[in-house]
Amino acid sequence: MQIWRVNVGQRNLTREPAPESWSRLGGRGLSARILLDEVDPSCDPLGAGNKLIFAPGLLVGHMLSSCDRISIGGKSPLTGGIKEANAGGTTGLQMAYLGIRALIIEDIPAEPGFWVLHLSKQGARFEQTFRACPEPAEGVSEDPKGLIGLGVYETASKLLEKYGQKVAIALIGPGGEMKLSAAGIQNLDKDKVPSRIAARGGLGAVMGSKGLKAVVFDAAGCPKPPIANPEAYREAQKVYNKALLDHPQTHTYRDYGTAAMVQMCQTFGSLPTRNFSAGQFEGADAISGEHLRELLLGRGGVSNPTHACMPGCTIRCSNVFGGEDGKVIVSPLEYESIGLMGSNLGIDSLDAIARLNWQVNDLGLDSIEVGAALGVAAEAGQMGWGDAARALELLDEIRRNTPLGRVLANGAVSTGKHFGIQRVPAVKGQAMSAYEPRAIKGTGVTYATSPQGADHTAGLTIRARINHLDPKGQADVSRTAQINMAGYDSLGACLFAGFGFAVASVETIASLLNARYGWNVGTDILQALGKETLKLEREFNRRAGFTAKDDRLPEWMTREPLPPHNAVFDVAEEDLDGVFDW
Amino acid sequence: MQIWRVNVGQRNLTREPAPESWSRLGGRGLSARILLDEVDPSCDPLGAGNKLIFAPGLLVGHMLSSCDRISIGGKSPLTGGIKEANAGGTTGLQMAYLGIRALIIEDIPAEPGFWVLHLSKQGARFEQTFRACPEPAEGVSEDPKGLIGLGVYETASKLLEKYGQKVAIALIGPGGEMKLSAAGIQNLDKDKVPSRIAARGGLGAVMGSKGLKAVVFDAAGCPKPPIANPEAYREAQKVYNKALLDHPQTHTYRDYGTAAMVQMCQTFGSLPTRNFSAGQFEGADAISGEHLRELLLGRGGVSNPTHACMPGCTIRCSNVFGGEDGKVIVSPLEYESIGLMGSNLGIDSLDAIARLNWQVNDLGLDSIEVGAALGVAAEAGQMGWGDAARALELLDEIRRNTPLGRVLANGAVSTGKHFGIQRVPAVKGQAMSAYEPRAIKGTGVTYATSPQGADHTAGLTIRARINHLDPKGQADVSRTAQINMAGYDSLGACLFAGFGFAVASVETIASLLNARYGWNVGTDILQALGKETLKLEREFNRRAGFTAKDDRLPEWMTREPLPPHNAVFDVAEEDLDGVFDW
Repeated sequence: MQIWRVNVGQRNLTREPAPESWSRLGGRGLSARILLDEVDPSCDPLGAGNKLIFAPGLLVGHMLSSCDRISIGGKSPLTGGIKEANAGGTTGLQMAYLGIRALIIEDIPAEPGFWVLHLSKQGARFEQTFRACPEPAEGVSEDPKGLIGLGVYETASKLLEKYGQKVAIALIGPGGEMKLSAAGIQNLDKDKVPSRIAARGGLGAVMGSKGLKAVVFDAAGCPKPPIANPEAYREAQKVYNKALLDHPQTHTYRDYGTAAMVQMCQTFGSLPTRNFSAGQFEGADAISGEHLRELLLGRGGVSNPTHACMPGCTIRCSNVFGGEDGKVIVSPLEYESIGLMGSNLGIDSLDAIARLNWQVNDLGLDSIEVGAALGVAAEAGQMGWGDAARALELLDEIRRNTPLGRVLANGAVSTGKHFGIQRVPAVKGQAMSAYEPRAIKGTGVTYATSPQGADHTAGLTIRARINHLDPKGQADVSRTAQINMAGYDSLGACLFAGFGFAVASVETIASLLNARYGWNVGTDILQALGKETLKLEREFNRRAGFTAKDDRLPEWMTREPLPPHNAVFDVAEEDLDGVFDW
Repeated sequence: MQIWRVNVGQRNLTREPAPESWSRLGGRGLSARILLDEVDPSCDPLGAGNKLIFAPGLLVGHMLSSCDRISIGGKSPLTGGIKEANAGGTTGLQMAYLGIRALIIEDIPAEPGFWVLHLSKQGARFEQTFRACPEPAEGVSEDPKGLIGLGVYETASKLLEKYGQKVAIALIGPGGEMKLSAAGIQNLDKDKVPSRIAARGGLGAVMGSKGLKAVVFDAAGCPKPPIANPEAYREAQKVYNKALLDHPQTHTYRDYGTAAMVQMCQTFGSLPTRNFSAGQFEGADAISGEHLRELLLGRGGVSNPTHACMPGCTIRCSNVFGGEDGKVIVSPLEYESIGLMGSNLGIDSLDAIARLNWQVNDLGLDSIEVGAALGVAAEAGQMGWGDAARALELLDEIRRNTPLGRVLANGAVSTGKHFGIQRVPAVKGQAMSAYEPRAIKGTGVTYATSPQGADHTAGLTIRARINHLDPKGQADVSRTAQINMAGYDSLGACLFAGFGFAVASVETIASLLNARYGWNVGTDILQALGKETLKLEREFNRRAGFTAKDDRLPEWMTREPLPPHNAVFDVAEEDLDGVFDW
């Protein structure tokens, strides 16, 4: 397992063994370690000093169910702090086959333009077919415009045509090319659809600043990553698989996908509605997981309420959303998109949400950030609540790179600032996910204190057995969730893999790691990885100038009551400041 | 001397004696004290928690030359930190006559709209003629739209018509109404032209958020503020006046105005040129103070190279810039506007700059911030260098409240972020003034470390006897300048009053204060006021989450050499961190 270091200024690759201090880390934790070691936290996120890290989690490479995720990291142009965004799909797997523990992309190009970086066991190739200049360069026979400005879907299909159907691809859309702060990095799912987006924090803009339209990972001719103790590994895998398969949540997510959360949040009064002004939505039934399943089963054609994003996943929480004509509208349609682009905009049609979602995906943007920005824009009178046609027009402003489009695609804070709107649901510059923090206060603590900015994947607490409206005890619940999630993100394990690990006991994680790497880690390894990761991330942010003042929800959420419970966010500041005292 | 407290939510005024801890402070220092005592530093600058402070300096009220300035303060929507912006004109004087030590404007209106606040010895009146609603409200006989959307010049003349020619007025333009971060607060000069703008940091947006289009100060029937020891006061005043009149700089500024700085900066290689990419401008002669004087003397009509902004000022650094037709184009035309909207945009015509300046004034915006934003926009391809016609079009985008206009009028950082431009000349979110910090490194230290964000008035060092290119010793020079300026800003003294005080010795300041208030302060009073003010401001910013990382110039200035000296900003970080260790 090596570190691959690509310099886009000099267009070269060096391969080196991982330093000792990095060797026990993976995914989010390794990304944090590299960033802290090599990047000046006060650098310009879109400048030569920032680095873009791709690091598969420690368990990636063996199609362990829900454990092949890729972590992508860098300094965020959205938050100004450290950022890790992870995704399913096949990128992590192909990187593991190539023997890459981490890919570090450095510098910025010496001339403007976009390239495709092709990585294989032969090394790195920069394909110069994708130039920004309007005239073909001398000696360039292909269409010089190439992929510039193309959406994610068309780009992916052209790249697959060129590089073969077996490669993994990480790519950006027009949003990343335009260096917009809501831009993410997409990855192919197992069916080669570029829908697995490392969405949050603007890492697509960082990739755009490095002049990369796509990174192609071609593991042709590479063996499976070695396993130190195959028998012990198989044994541990069996325990984990059984636990995961037996867990009731696995079935819920298979049947309803993440959209199952719509009714759950509606019940808790935590479904973001009309720019986070209410916690229940009168159209919740129409956008619920139950209705989604019914609709997709009824429609037939490509529609499918159950779909796996990674090879080998037994949960298969994903789906394919087809239209009445049997053709795909978008795949998948996830709860976060439904929450932010549905109830948050007053839109109660799954078809309309799916169409918005396709556009946002094709632009290469984060549907949470864009959905939140549209909510703020709606409050500023730029669209009516529930007006999906106008929302599509606003997305088209982004595609046309108009000033209004840029404002929106730079995120919710940018939009609020632009229109002078106070009710902006964001922390550290990043929009909240679809869990209203006044009604799920533990998740509010996570939003406030996570080094990543507001994000549910940093530590969702909705399943904790606690009164979510009571301010007491929420910091403890958030602390546990944040440590676990930082641990899972270092393993490459999906949020939902946690169900399996929780039942199979944490020993299984240690067994899997020890069997794979020949290590001798203890049962506290998940916690240890999580704490180490959070410590590194907080240190990066501290050096970037963050203080306790950044670990707060927006002030209006502490005084504006949220219907129906009329809750405000009232977790004590001492509790917030104590989250990382473990 | 009282504290007047206006609540715009309840529309009432309370008058109270100043608390003991405020009683020895004035202007900028008093504003800082009030903000620290009463405003949560983490509040939304445009929300109910922020306060807008008007505080005349300690020497205001007796037409002491250059010492009747008004300090306006609040939490800045541009920097997110503390802000004081001061201006000449007549506001400070009228407030002193009314016996107001500080006016504190609190809360936000319960309903959207704009009002005129009229203050007199009878108390406060809210004039409801200026409603945001398109239909006349019941019982309102006047044009219900009133002043909404009107430029500063037309607004001022209507207000003077209504309230009489003797009042002072502080008002905002469309920029403040739109809550744009480059919006300032204008004040009438002695000729009733609303050109004296407390420009920096977006306080006009704060005033807009409080629903105030204007505050009218009517001191009719009020006596001159009392003087404890008139004889001693007259004596000290005589010494000061003589020193000021005899100082050679007084004559330079009377003859050439602040535009004298064009040639000085050109010589030092510190004239911001084409978005701070060079320090000398080939068109410098055409925009110089010498050329300005010649032009104005030749034109006749209203043109006048010498003009006083405050009654009683003997320096008269201001001017009236008229066209060939003898009619006014703008008054005054100052160096900062020439630098930021001239050389910084590659524009070498004073007429063109004057026309841009009028538009920016009429919009109620800071010409430094807008000039810097236009420079960044030019780098992004939104206008050609030197294309004044296009620059006027861009200002019209602001007036029409288009998305692009809002981006520009939210400042240089907003514009850089929007277009993905790295070369943004700003610190703490605020654009630099027209002194290139790589060539005048002491002023670079001030930009970096001032609690106010980048601003020359926080501590200009260009007259210090030091090699401005040598990184050594600049922190000391900046420290002295920052302490002195914070002191002068607390006295209500203009930057140029310093010439007089420097010659007359600092004893004169103590004598003036002791004679006026019956105090017994020592000769270190200027330093004491300055240090106290800076301490308060830094504490506010610390509580708002600022750290040493915020006390830095933009990273690109530390590595991009500035022609012609090819200087980078290389003052050591230890030096920057030690500026406030006195």
